[in-house]
Amino acid sequence: MTYPNTHIILSQVQDALEKDNLTQAIQILQTLKPVDQAEVFEDLDNEDQVSLLPNLESDMSADILEYIEDEDAARLVAGIPEETAVRIINEMEPDEAADLLGDIQPQKAQSILAQLENPEEVRPLLIHPDESAGGLMTSEFLALRRRMTVNEALQAVRAWQPEKDQIYYLFVVDANSVLRGVISPRQLIIAEPTSLIMNIMDTDVISVKAGVDQEEVAELMLRYDLLALPVLDENNVLLGIITIDDVVDVVVEEATEDIQKFGGAQPLDEPYLLTKATSIFKKRISWLLLLFVTASLTGTVMRFFQNELQTVVALSVFIPLLIGTGGNAGSQTTSTIIRALAVGEMHVWDALKAIWHETQVGLLLGMAMAVVAYIRAVTWGSSPGLSITVSSSILLIVIWANLMGAVLPTLAQRLKIDPTVVSGPVMSTLVDATGLFIYFTIAKAVLGI
Amino acid sequence: MTYPNTHIILSQVQDALEKDNLTQAIQILQTLKPVDQAEVFEDLDNEDQVSLLPNLESDMSADILEYIEDEDAARLVAGIPEETAVRIINEMEPDEAADLLGDIQPQKAQSILAQLENPEEVRPLLIHPDESAGGLMTSEFLALRRRMTVNEALQAVRAWQPEKDQIYYLFVVDANSVLRGVISPRQLIIAEPTSLIMNIMDTDVISVKAGVDQEEVAELMLRYDLLALPVLDENNVLLGIITIDDVVDVVVEEATEDIQKFGGAQPLDEPYLLTKATSIFKKRISWLLLLFVTASLTGTVMRFFQNELQTVVALSVFIPLLIGTGGNAGSQTTSTIIRALAVGEMHVWDALKAIWHETQVGLLLGMAMAVVAYIRAVTWGSSPGLSITVSSSILLIVIWANLMGAVLPTLAQRLKIDPTVVSGPVMSTLVDATGLFIYFTIAKAVLGI
Repeated sequence: MTYPNTHIILSQVQDALEKDNLTQAIQILQTLKPVDQAEVFEDLDNEDQVSLLPNLESDMSADILEYIEDEDAARLVAGIPEETAVRIINEMEPDEAADLLGDIQPQKAQSILAQLENPEEVRPLLIHPDESAGGLMTSEFLALRRRMTVNEALQAVRAWQPEKDQIYYLFVVDANSVLRGVISPRQLIIAEPTSLIMNIMDTDVISVKAGVDQEEVAELMLRYDLLALPVLDENNVLLGIITIDDVVDVVVEEATEDIQKFGGAQPLDEPYLLTKATSIFKKRISWLLLLFVTASLTGTVMRFFQNELQTVVALSVFIPLLIGTGGNAGSQTTSTIIRALAVGEMHVWDALKAIWHETQVGLLLGMAMAVVAYIRAVTWGSSPGLSITVSSSILLIVIWANLMGAVLPTLAQRLKIDPTVVSGPVMSTLVDATGLFIYFTIAKAVLGI
Repeated sequence: MTYPNTHIILSQVQDALEKDNLTQAIQILQTLKPVDQAEVFEDLDNEDQVSLLPNLESDMSADILEYIEDEDAARLVAGIPEETAVRIINEMEPDEAADLLGDIQPQKAQSILAQLENPEEVRPLLIHPDESAGGLMTSEFLALRRRMTVNEALQAVRAWQPEKDQIYYLFVVDANSVLRGVISPRQLIIAEPTSLIMNIMDTDVISVKAGVDQEEVAELMLRYDLLALPVLDENNVLLGIITIDDVVDVVVEEATEDIQKFGGAQPLDEPYLLTKATSIFKKRISWLLLLFVTASLTGTVMRFFQNELQTVVALSVFIPLLIGTGGNAGSQTTSTIIRALAVGEMHVWDALKAIWHETQVGLLLGMAMAVVAYIRAVTWGSSPGLSITVSSSILLIVIWANLMGAVLPTLAQRLKIDPTVVSGPVMSTLVDATGLFIYFTIAKAVLGI
């Protein structure tokens, strides 16, 4: 299949709205799946959005609010009559409703909450931080009891009317709502109707406490291939479940953050094009300044060797080449190591293995680059002494950069600092100063200056 | 919950094996979940693995082979008696069995295949490339018929004995095996037993053709929150299904590749610590060489301005600072843009928006850095002229780097080249040469050299 062309559909909807033909606009949107409806809706201007939203079926409005950006949803809800907002939010999944209410003005949120059909499903979700298991979970789940028969459990499933059609697992609790077991829909279908749930349930349930970080939740669900993960309070009372679709979003989000941090910028909180230039500036300036201070070190090294530079000005021609290659080699290593640590291919205790690995790789890369650098120096007409200086410097710089690239992220992880702080820019800047020091020291020795 | 400490369990298993107490080793492994069993097993030495594997229950061996690295699994299967291999592979999910057989010596694979209980489930999976929808799918699915009643469908579910316990959706086909509809397990449970499947099924099914790339499969399943995606041949015959757990692995793998490529290295095919130093060397050397050639440009720029350098040697002190800052600003921008393109936050047609965005951000960052650089130059005792040169150069270099960081990945995407080729190292190297050109041109004008 191919995606619907939301660009074409967008202009059809806009045309219809321009002619004040609301019915036609709605009919066009109805041909789409919710996520595509949301994509078209998001590209309409604010006026059209506000006039359209209250006129859609409540569940369609709810779907759109769930799929568009959080802050756009909050802005829209603030702009429509409160009773319309209540009608729409009633159709949302509790976790999405809680996220939305958490983003709007607290008084208005309280007022809307009080008018919902099932405020008790949404209220407990408001207290958990967004990036914790509690913030990810939904309270919309069906809990079975141990002494139910399979037949009674099937009745319970039939009576249950969730916003979302999918059942992942059915969790079993005791009289105190403490989690006791789990069964899959398939087990329920194949079991004898008169069997007791406690006799067919699996009692070895993987679960998390509400305060656990979302990254750990994702790791757990991916490791054990879980479609849903129960969230418990301190007394093992079942509070809610986290479903795989929300966790996939977390995985994508964390990878985005890692790549942005690796590029040397703090991750953005919103999609790039929707983020204001001043916000992007704030996310980037601190790293640039910090790296500028570190890069001053490089300048200090050069001032220290100013006499040598004065004597052999040709030395300066190779500076960008040498520190560039060092920075690149370091960046290659550190990106590999950071990712290996992130996905668990490598652990802190593997540090020595990684160092040995990179010593070998650095030696191979360094020797290859030394040959190339020697040829480059000679073809630029450099003296034999200078050529040898450049060539042996690059060998040492590459080995050094590979070692730093392996050691620093692992050390950061060990110190419980996010290893992505050792980003590409950080590596380049560190290798700049130390690389120049290596270069000038060798130059002094070889050229006798 | 916390993970079991596989390090401690590993040494317990090793102890038991040293005392030739195979039963005890197996008992210890049995306390673990399959993925944890595999982690312990993978760290045993080859001799222990080969002696242990044939003595485990077949389904436990099958689970372990599914979870360990593909090449380790292939090596093990090559090392055990063929009849043992057949017994174990019989217990594997068909897609995993096909992946494994695809990795071992073709003659042996054919021989094992012929002895399997259900070779017809595995054989068709062997013909699809690993990274296509066909390569990701499993042939283990239950297809219902349109004229079945709900009761008959439930009977079919009860009679079906898959290796994997989870049912995601039930797909409905016609007499020619053409896909016609889908129903969820919940729909099956809540429907009247006498209803016909064709009356309760959803006919609007999202599907893919077998040849579609895995990246597109992942995008589709994530976009529409699907737990399973049917794979069809050219005639819409249902060939298999792709399940969400396999797609999550694809998402993680693609993010790893992006980060490695962004660091300027070709992605590794295997986990880092298992990859040989020479293989890592091969993955990195081509980029280093290419960047070296580009960096030679920087040297050429410096040779071009050698007279100016000779006249004002102090100019050289600021070179690493200037090109470093430019490279860092470019790397920040390009990492953000690449990821925005990858997750669909931004499209090629948004190029102008991105350019305008980065012009603003570059102006803000450039002005801030210009102030800092001016102070740095003055405190290093530089002449007013040199300080102004450095300060205005950094302003222009940062704006230029931000623009390049926005334009180049978008251009790559437009030309259907992977945007991650514009990695951090590529940005730094490009900005080095152009940045120096800006610097020396301003120096000539301001200092009159």
